[in-house]
Amino acid sequence: MARSVGFIGLGAMGEPMAWNLADAGFDLVVYNRTTERERPFAEAGISVADSPEHLVKRVDVVCLMVSDGDAVTEVLEREFGVLDGIDESTTLIQMSTVGRDETMAAATAVTDAGGQFLDCPVSGTVGPAREGTLVGLAGGDDAVIDDVDPVLEAMCDPVVRCGEVGQGTSMKLFINLLLGDLMGAFAEALTFGVSTDLAIEDMLTVVENGAVDSPLFTAKGQQISEGDYDPRFPVDYQFKDLDLALDLASDERVPMSVTAAARELFSGARADDHGDEDMAAVIKYLAETADVDPSASDE
Amino acid sequence: MARSVGFIGLGAMGEPMAWNLADAGFDLVVYNRTTERERPFAEAGISVADSPEHLVKRVDVVCLMVSDGDAVTEVLEREFGVLDGIDESTTLIQMSTVGRDETMAAATAVTDAGGQFLDCPVSGTVGPAREGTLVGLAGGDDAVIDDVDPVLEAMCDPVVRCGEVGQGTSMKLFINLLLGDLMGAFAEALTFGVSTDLAIEDMLTVVENGAVDSPLFTAKGQQISEGDYDPRFPVDYQFKDLDLALDLASDERVPMSVTAAARELFSGARADDHGDEDMAAVIKYLAETADVDPSASDE
Amino acid sequence: MARSVGFIGLGAMGEPMAWNLADAGFDLVVYNRTTERERPFAEAGISVADSPEHLVKRVDVVCLMVSDGDAVTEVLEREFGVLDGIDESTTLIQMSTVGRDETMAAATAVTDAGGQFLDCPVSGTVGPAREGTLVGLAGGDDAVIDDVDPVLEAMCDPVVRCGEVGQGTSMKLFINLLLGDLMGAFAEALTFGVSTDLAIEDMLTVVENGAVDSPLFTAKGQQISEGDYDPRFPVDYQFKDLDLALDLASDERVPMSVTAAARELFSGARADDHGDEDMAAVIKYLAETADVDPSASDE
Amino acid sequence: MARSVGFIGLGAMGEPMAWNLADAGFDLVVYNRTTERERPFAEAGISVADSPEHLVKRVDVVCLMVSDGDAVTEVLEREFGVLDGIDESTTLIQMSTVGRDETMAAATAVTDAGGQFLDCPVSGTVGPAREGTLVGLAGGDDAVIDDVDPVLEAMCDPVVRCGEVGQGTSMKLFINLLLGDLMGAFAEALTFGVSTDLAIEDMLTVVENGAVDSPLFTAKGQQISEGDYDPRFPVDYQFKDLDLALDLASDERVPMSVTAAARELFSGARADDHGDEDMAAVIKYLAETADVDPSASDE
Repeated sequence: MARSVGFIGLGAMGEPMAWNLADAGFDLVVYNRTTERERPFAEAGISVADSPEHLVKRVDVVCLMVSDGDAVTEVLEREFGVLDGIDESTTLIQMSTVGRDETMAAATAVTDAGGQFLDCPVSGTVGPAREGTLVGLAGGDDAVIDDVDPVLEAMCDPVVRCGEVGQGTSMKLFINLLLGDLMGAFAEALTFGVSTDLAIEDMLTVVENGAVDSPLFTAKGQQISEGDYDPRFPVDYQFKDLDLALDLASDERVPMSVTAAARELFSGARADDHGDEDMAAVIKYLAETADVDPSASDE
Repeated sequence: MARSVGFIGLGAMGEPMAWNLADAGFDLVVYNRTTERERPFAEAGISVADSPEHLVKRVDVVCLMVSDGDAVTEVLEREFGVLDGIDESTTLIQMSTVGRDETMAAATAVTDAGGQFLDCPVSGTVGPAREGTLVGLAGGDDAVIDDVDPVLEAMCDPVVRCGEVGQGTSMKLFINLLLGDLMGAFAEALTFGVSTDLAIEDMLTVVENGAVDSPLFTAKGQQISEGDYDPRFPVDYQFKDLDLALDLASDERVPMSVTAAARELFSGARADDHGDEDMAAVIKYLAETADVDPSASDE
Repeated sequence: MARSVGFIGLGAMGEPMAWNLADAGFDLVVYNRTTERERPFAEAGISVADSPEHLVKRVDVVCLMVSDGDAVTEVLEREFGVLDGIDESTTLIQMSTVGRDETMAAATAVTDAGGQFLDCPVSGTVGPAREGTLVGLAGGDDAVIDDVDPVLEAMCDPVVRCGEVGQGTSMKLFINLLLGDLMGAFAEALTFGVSTDLAIEDMLTVVENGAVDSPLFTAKGQQISEGDYDPRFPVDYQFKDLDLALDLASDERVPMSVTAAARELFSGARADDHGDEDMAAVIKYLAETADVDPSASDE
Repeated sequence: MARSVGFIGLGAMGEPMAWNLADAGFDLVVYNRTTERERPFAEAGISVADSPEHLVKRVDVVCLMVSDGDAVTEVLEREFGVLDGIDESTTLIQMSTVGRDETMAAATAVTDAGGQFLDCPVSGTVGPAREGTLVGLAGGDDAVIDDVDPVLEAMCDPVVRCGEVGQGTSMKLFINLLLGDLMGAFAEALTFGVSTDLAIEDMLTVVENGAVDSPLFTAKGQQISEGDYDPRFPVDYQFKDLDLALDLASDERVPMSVTAAARELFSGARADDHGDEDMAAVIKYLAETADVDPSASDE
């Protein structure tokens, strides 16, 4: 008999992740705060829960994928919330990107209520979410991870075991601070290049032929040259992740001055009203100051 | 008849570049300030010049690959220097990584003396230098580049045409500032991760499965996990390139706060006596402050 | 008849502030989490409350001066806490340095419980606290400030009215971010000077004769020249305030790259185990890297 | 008999300094590259030299106060330049703000030509220049300083002896990097405050009542509240001094991340076309990003 899995949070990432669980044959129950995003699942014959409590009581494994730490707290602690439904048969997988303190607080609440807890944020954007090739960053006991491994494998490939509960979140902040730093560095370098009259196509050619070549620069370079700032991963989210990483770094007493400068760059992009645009829009903030246009000339 | 090419500066990069010219069948003449590095060429039957002037007078095309702007000025202006040998038949290719002001001053001196000038710094380390796969970053008139293209192709693949004289140098600073920023960001991220008890192997796995995957991180990640800081590209050189890029950025009025923070990180690594070690040693400066060991545990 | 005032939080700052209230003739009631610090007050015949609730019920005006936002939440929400004692006759003056979000949350809780709320953090150290010359930074309705003005004047001179509830806290973060930035800048400048063989006495002379002369530099310069890092205002506190300011700045979308760099400098000082020392100890982190001794030679 | 003094460089600072020499009774000879600025001196019966060489030959002590290192090199090395006039009776006082390398190169040239050399840059703006209360920052042998002390005292009060030749320049960079960092920090703090709806007058009151009170903040705060950006010390000059300080710091291997961030702030102000305005205009760059107006409301 197929195992039952609940999925809370059907946003841009959560929705395709939930479909992958359905496609993998799990007995799926979904919940979303705004019901509109539940409809396609209902229409496909997938169960929709009235409340987080309701969902948790009907399944063995609960995946939680919401927007931030406040949303995690809310969905756990609200009336008819997750905590109201948990017993010793429940395993909750916290997949949202939040601070390590926040994931640890959720862990304590869940285990106090008798359940099992893993944190398993994911690295990757909507494309890999659809294809089930997100990088799963799992923190928790090996036995618990083993138990839910088929659930994780339905959404992620590979699943990297990062250590104890909380270390999945640390790994997520590690990779996303690196992402933010790289985007900030790329934006500065391209603005520099355009200001010295280099063609963006030539810069991208040089990047792709060198040690710094990366999928990020290929994708963002193309977006910038086309002036396409549709959000794959918005400036506001990248700013939040740099902020969470710097918070954790201060707890761990690691000074990170490059990352701090990158954070302020994204802060500037938000101030210039680019918060909802793709993270690549951080270049707009710099390009405006330097009075250049980073998009490719079409001569 | 084979065309005659002179090569000045037989350092770690220059030596394999010169051998590639010899292997390509050019009639090669070499010169190096300290004669010891000329010996293998002499033993292979390749001509060695007594002075830059002497070399320039014997060849059509002169490649200049020395350590910095002062060395460029010295080799041009010294007694029996390059400028003493130039006439209208000479094309000088300035391949050293120097400031744009410095390459422009050399250009003026060479053209005033009647010669042709290109700047063509190269992107890549000793490996690509040996294999002839450096990325050539050529600045100058297309006709002049066309004329010496076989010379450049013997050392570089591809040769990217960056624009006018000086723009090869701008492109080199573009790519090397990005390199320095990435190394600084990677060092911060790894120190952060180790401080939160993540295993370096796991961090490298996550990097390699994500958008930030790059040859740089693969190579430097492995070096750091093995504690191998033998210089491929030393901290001092990377510092110099960040400094030259920030100088040019200030002329072009591009504020680069991420790059400025990266420069100070390399400054700290130099202060901690890591200037002669590989650029990856920038992590030693951070790791010492955070009191962690970034090399892999061997359990 | 003398008005009754309660004071919660008898730390390094709170204790002399409370004594000033007693000296001004107010009918004082004090409370501190650890009872040891209450003893001198009891011995002087001043009332000591068993709990925050008990204190609040006995007085008209409550001053709250605890270490951080978590302590504010705890003292308000705990069993027998402040909120248990509040009615419409109570005015609570929140004087602790916390985030603006945290002071606003306290304001909501207090007004929901029927009380009046002001925030009035103070600028100054233990000296001015003793002398009653702290700068009071009051946020709230003018009528409420007018009402408790004699209470504030017993501890502060001047009292600056900063605007609505929350703006006292904004002003406190404004002045303390400036303080942290100045200390960081001073530490860098002195380390620079010592590295170039300037005598610290000469540097202090030049500072005191110039536009940058300030009481801060006079005091911290003397401490550094004497190697005296006894905490007047510890590195950990200054770090916390820079962190709170950067959090608020990101809400307000003000990029602050100088302040972000200063935050990382204090983060480095904490990593080097100087968190409990005076904020001037931030120079130790830099001086160790630069391998110089900033204290004055006694030749 | 009055001693003869030459003054080269009658700019905004040099002109009042030269008048003070005349007022002190020295037998003065002046020279300026553009003759227009020499006219008021000629009209007052003061000697004007045709060339630097001419001036040097007529006096015992030469004060050099020009705009930057290139100007120092030019006035020394040009045809009919300073070096053409020097013999063992000449003492040259290099008062311009230049890099330490540049002042050391001038020192070598002057002493090679047989003369005595001091560096004595000055701290202070046009006001103190007029009043003869600049802070003189003298580097060189005590005997040489003793010899020209009356000349220095006519322009400066106090004269601080900073050590060997070159250390006057190090001290000047020390004080001006501190100045730039403070201006950058003040601009960030005020922008932060205005964004949180604090009134600039209230912020200035709090600053003036605290440890960070300084003549700089009083003066610049008033300018900013009045929207007065007439150049006392322009953004371009402050940027140059931060740049020179960071260059020297890298030679001395002192990482200065706060100062590096301040440099980029001034770089941004230059990019936004505020280079010719007063250094206080650095706030315009930030205020535009944060979309606030830092000048005082006139309600």
